[in-house]
Amino acid sequence: MTPLKLGMVGGGQGAFIGGVHRMASRLDGCFDLVAGAFASDPARAHASAAELGVSAERSYADYKAMATAEAARPDGIDAVSIVTPNHLHGPIAEAFLAEGIHVICDKPMTATLAQAESLLAVAEQSKAHFFLTHNYTGYPLIRQAREMVGEGVLGDIRIVQAEYLQDWLSSAPAPDNKQAAWRTDPKQSGGGAIGDIGTHAYNLASFVTGLPTQQLSATLSTHVAGRLVDDDARVSLQFEGGARGYIWASQVAIGNENNLTLAIYGTKASIRWAQENPNILWFTPVGGAPQMITRGSASASPAAAAVTRIPAGHPEGYLEAFATLYREAANVINANSETDNNNAVIGIAQGMDGMRFVDACIRSSNDGAAWITL
Amino acid sequence: MTPLKLGMVGGGQGAFIGGVHRMASRLDGCFDLVAGAFASDPARAHASAAELGVSAERSYADYKAMATAEAARPDGIDAVSIVTPNHLHGPIAEAFLAEGIHVICDKPMTATLAQAESLLAVAEQSKAHFFLTHNYTGYPLIRQAREMVGEGVLGDIRIVQAEYLQDWLSSAPAPDNKQAAWRTDPKQSGGGAIGDIGTHAYNLASFVTGLPTQQLSATLSTHVAGRLVDDDARVSLQFEGGARGYIWASQVAIGNENNLTLAIYGTKASIRWAQENPNILWFTPVGGAPQMITRGSASASPAAAAVTRIPAGHPEGYLEAFATLYREAANVINANSETDNNNAVIGIAQGMDGMRFVDACIRSSNDGAAWITL
Amino acid sequence: MTPLKLGMVGGGQGAFIGGVHRMASRLDGCFDLVAGAFASDPARAHASAAELGVSAERSYADYKAMATAEAARPDGIDAVSIVTPNHLHGPIAEAFLAEGIHVICDKPMTATLAQAESLLAVAEQSKAHFFLTHNYTGYPLIRQAREMVGEGVLGDIRIVQAEYLQDWLSSAPAPDNKQAAWRTDPKQSGGGAIGDIGTHAYNLASFVTGLPTQQLSATLSTHVAGRLVDDDARVSLQFEGGARGYIWASQVAIGNENNLTLAIYGTKASIRWAQENPNILWFTPVGGAPQMITRGSASASPAAAAVTRIPAGHPEGYLEAFATLYREAANVINANSETDNNNAVIGIAQGMDGMRFVDACIRSSNDGAAWITL
Amino acid sequence: MTPLKLGMVGGGQGAFIGGVHRMASRLDGCFDLVAGAFASDPARAHASAAELGVSAERSYADYKAMATAEAARPDGIDAVSIVTPNHLHGPIAEAFLAEGIHVICDKPMTATLAQAESLLAVAEQSKAHFFLTHNYTGYPLIRQAREMVGEGVLGDIRIVQAEYLQDWLSSAPAPDNKQAAWRTDPKQSGGGAIGDIGTHAYNLASFVTGLPTQQLSATLSTHVAGRLVDDDARVSLQFEGGARGYIWASQVAIGNENNLTLAIYGTKASIRWAQENPNILWFTPVGGAPQMITRGSASASPAAAAVTRIPAGHPEGYLEAFATLYREAANVINANSETDNNNAVIGIAQGMDGMRFVDACIRSSNDGAAWITL
Repeated sequence: MTPLKLGMVGGGQGAFIGGVHRMASRLDGCFDLVAGAFASDPARAHASAAELGVSAERSYADYKAMATAEAARPDGIDAVSIVTPNHLHGPIAEAFLAEGIHVICDKPMTATLAQAESLLAVAEQSKAHFFLTHNYTGYPLIRQAREMVGEGVLGDIRIVQAEYLQDWLSSAPAPDNKQAAWRTDPKQSGGGAIGDIGTHAYNLASFVTGLPTQQLSATLSTHVAGRLVDDDARVSLQFEGGARGYIWASQVAIGNENNLTLAIYGTKASIRWAQENPNILWFTPVGGAPQMITRGSASASPAAAAVTRIPAGHPEGYLEAFATLYREAANVINANSETDNNNAVIGIAQGMDGMRFVDACIRSSNDGAAWITL
Repeated sequence: MTPLKLGMVGGGQGAFIGGVHRMASRLDGCFDLVAGAFASDPARAHASAAELGVSAERSYADYKAMATAEAARPDGIDAVSIVTPNHLHGPIAEAFLAEGIHVICDKPMTATLAQAESLLAVAEQSKAHFFLTHNYTGYPLIRQAREMVGEGVLGDIRIVQAEYLQDWLSSAPAPDNKQAAWRTDPKQSGGGAIGDIGTHAYNLASFVTGLPTQQLSATLSTHVAGRLVDDDARVSLQFEGGARGYIWASQVAIGNENNLTLAIYGTKASIRWAQENPNILWFTPVGGAPQMITRGSASASPAAAAVTRIPAGHPEGYLEAFATLYREAANVINANSETDNNNAVIGIAQGMDGMRFVDACIRSSNDGAAWITL
Repeated sequence: MTPLKLGMVGGGQGAFIGGVHRMASRLDGCFDLVAGAFASDPARAHASAAELGVSAERSYADYKAMATAEAARPDGIDAVSIVTPNHLHGPIAEAFLAEGIHVICDKPMTATLAQAESLLAVAEQSKAHFFLTHNYTGYPLIRQAREMVGEGVLGDIRIVQAEYLQDWLSSAPAPDNKQAAWRTDPKQSGGGAIGDIGTHAYNLASFVTGLPTQQLSATLSTHVAGRLVDDDARVSLQFEGGARGYIWASQVAIGNENNLTLAIYGTKASIRWAQENPNILWFTPVGGAPQMITRGSASASPAAAAVTRIPAGHPEGYLEAFATLYREAANVINANSETDNNNAVIGIAQGMDGMRFVDACIRSSNDGAAWITL
Repeated sequence: MTPLKLGMVGGGQGAFIGGVHRMASRLDGCFDLVAGAFASDPARAHASAAELGVSAERSYADYKAMATAEAARPDGIDAVSIVTPNHLHGPIAEAFLAEGIHVICDKPMTATLAQAESLLAVAEQSKAHFFLTHNYTGYPLIRQAREMVGEGVLGDIRIVQAEYLQDWLSSAPAPDNKQAAWRTDPKQSGGGAIGDIGTHAYNLASFVTGLPTQQLSATLSTHVAGRLVDDDARVSLQFEGGARGYIWASQVAIGNENNLTLAIYGTKASIRWAQENPNILWFTPVGGAPQMITRGSASASPAAAAVTRIPAGHPEGYLEAFATLYREAANVINANSETDNNNAVIGIAQGMDGMRFVDACIRSSNDGAAWITL
């Protein structure tokens, strides 16, 4: 398989998620990074390019120039990764989609629902694909959880509990903390905990259960004085068919690093999973002993095995799950129809769903936790 | 120390909590069981008494007769344990308090708020004490958690998360399951999950933090067809001073037995505790490594050590915590003023608070999760 | 059931294990403590008796006097608990057995093999029973483990791994630490880690597997300067039938409190258990997912259920397991033949086995870990 | 940084560890795979090359031809990864080292000590480097453990306990299980559990403590009928300076996948680590509460941070640790002297140490667990 040619917007020196995307794109050999607008400051952009082995010729300081130039090259990029603050996702994605270049975009899709709708319109007109990196969906045992729910192993779903607890914003961050700065600026982020991690929890719940949300009620709180966005979010969901969902996202829960958990309770069984030790899925049939299903073992399902790289007991982690999204994106781009045989790829539809979720949560919370129909 | 003379109402053959109270009363040698109305059916009452080594003369089938007769005896009981279904707690407690006999009552205090108010009036007129067995407050590390909060180790409290998850009512119970029968009959129980285990979670949160509740909003759900009471309860609390609390009580969470957990997040640190492995308390200072405080160890605090029986690493469990409430009740009865130096004893005030909580939850849920001021 | 009348030798003020025996004897109401020689110093003995509610008349400072006097009383004790340092177990037990009084003795049975043989001779002549409190055998899931091995669920046993790790002797103890003082004095203890906790691990392995030991090889080490007994012991066992066993007992393993674990690997399955969280038994069939069997649940076996007091998820601990030994001793004494239907009671035979084990370990270690035939 | 050109011997279709090396070499972008002798069968070799994107011109079926041809090319490989069965490691490594091509070799270094000595002689004459992939040394918290020991945080080391438990060879493997076939053939593997995983445990203990071994005593057992190599190994080590070490490696411990654990007990503190959840390091100071140090957190040390890719709470796993060895090898090759500033690179010396260990274990076990001086 020849690697696809990848560009990147954002992710220059000092950034975090850009490095993650680069490692994820490399792990399975599906992409080669050949171009980038790693920063809007030209000096920083070109220094980053040099460090990353991207030729000076294909180092840009402006994403629009990059989209145009790369589209014009015979060896132009096949796809671009967007790893900027949230408020830039939409415009950048639109620029590349308009040129027919595939987009792999970090989440949340945009900063506002209006941006999301604009992007949707552009994406619908483009022949290029749009991929959204809700990376937790790449964990093998999340795939197994989804498969188990789909096969009815849990019976009818009653309760979906998704939590994402962090503590890194428990205090006011240092002024030079760039990650914290844009995430707590509502203009750049579009929301606090609800947008940054609440969307992950919501997406994961939706991905695994397949349940559409009818209504939600949300309470967004801010626990650190002076903060302009929420840092603790509680959302109740009413799913179609009667199941209930509950989301808790917090950035002030001291002692939690990236404690994303999912528990699904049905009439016949439950499953429970935690991101910090993702190679284990707890399965309990009603009246039976809890069973510890491990990634790579004989208890792992076909959907899990399809995205498993190494045997049981040798832990796979965050980068592997992220890399699975890159590999699946490559497969879709390469028209390898086999790849998405379980519809695991996250794209514009899920991005819209996530932005509607955030928007509804903010409106509900502003209206005293009123129930909002999605 | 001469043991106090104890009577019991309820707890005959086939009952569950009566046996727990008996073991708890015996463990520290503070009480001798000498009388009882173990059942309302005379034959079952007397058979139970015989099994339990209670003389026929002091075996009653009627609690009123027992209260009168025991009060009249020179060797009459000092205290009575009430271990009946909830709707009988109030009348029985009133009968014994009226005779000046101390009462040790299982929770919740009554089935309804009206019963609670009636009982309060009687208790205020009685010279006898009323003790409520919110037994989880007896765990040593819960005492330590309370002490740490009180000393300001956590800073200002932001979030209190109390959950009590069970699965034993995940399906419709067998018709002959007596425990399930009365707990799911609203006339006998006064409520479902909210009354049976939600009150424990609420009491525990209050006990540890000392925070009074201003308002609450609750959603009570029923997931098993035909059930007349709630089996999943979600409550948001607004505490005085600004902290928020969240309670989740469920009886349909497959894979959870008595998974009562408490997490308290402050500005300086957090603590986390789980009843199923109660000899551990997690403490995490902001920015620091989580520390595993163990019961009986050098890290245990004076309040924990005061109710610890055996050294670290030899687990104490549910019965020991329960027995601590009996021992502390004995100490109060014996006017050993030292005993309750940390105000740990749970009595009529906490019982009223719990019943107001249940009542407000039911009203809030019936009114679309409206906020109710307590 | 009328409680049996119990005496105690040792266990006065400042002692540890005496209190444990008293709570264990009380929990199920099978025994009433009515006499004692709680210390050899008369003042301390009588002060202890007064605290414990034992009448002055039946408080003794000399165990021989106690044995004689109690045997002569019409209301004399039925049984005596021996909770002294190890080197006194034998003589005291002999004195009471000679009077026909049942003995409940803390482990190890004696300080030396010679004492054990002397005691055996006396016990064989006595009509009274001798019970040895290897208390970890009282945990419900240890009973289940034993039942599973006996029923062949594990197939043929290959490897038995029993470890008992502590850290309380990691440094030289304070001079006034009485518990440490006698345990590190070879004259009083008869051995260090091997006798104090190695015997527990060995007994547990034997109890659960039923495998007789053919040979052993041991290395006893001392890691704290100046200590006269071992504080870390490693023993290899060759069982009849070909299985191998390995015991590790340590008192210098910082971070371990009473970390007694048992793992048994067979041809068909394994089981694993840890005393510090004793309400869980891990069961893994070959090729299958590990299952978490919990005490009191539907997965618990009849042998576990027979010694379970409270439902699943409400932890039972060390005192409950200890109390089960007292209850079973009472049942044997009361000639309730039903009680020991699974031969769970630990007596003189197991005591002899344990002392032969300690003796062989010391000889092997002194001879360069030579293999010793038992 | 320009990637180094990498070749590979072994790792064709159906192999396991080859894929791991390829992912590890790619993750940080330090190597490009450009040549290979992926199998000795030409058809399988070339098919594998095609799948892996290696040009037909540089696909070889004979490693000697590959070494000669690549050495002669102006764009020849800088380094070769050797991922064959053990008995071929030595000859292949010698062929490439003789041509001045760096070698990255899977462990154990060779199948026999004689092969190791031969390889040592060649390596000493070569200007090329030899790297051995004891990959567990790449975990960040193992680096931290080593740093803590080196800084004296644990005081004097008393006990080093290293265990590596698997269960995949609990039964006789299926005839078509290639991984099992060569590993249980003494001619290809040189040993069973002791060579395949015992060397990992031994290497890890040595890497973290830096303690040279003086003597050892080993017992190798075979639990599956007909197996020609050991499947359970127990080794006692006497380190210079008085510390003792214990290794247990098993392939028949049902319920264990790759349960490699390391515990080090010193006079001042202990550390404990488990490979299956490698992002946690337990640290317990004597008399203090256990602390959970997490990878990427504020509690992580400089040595850990130097090999950490992503923030705390997002798990890194086996491939990341493996990739760290590739990155450090690249740094050494690129003469980036900064890289190995903590001497973390595993090379010929550690390989010799490992082979002497295996050889001594086999001799000791054959001689009744006799003590062998290394």
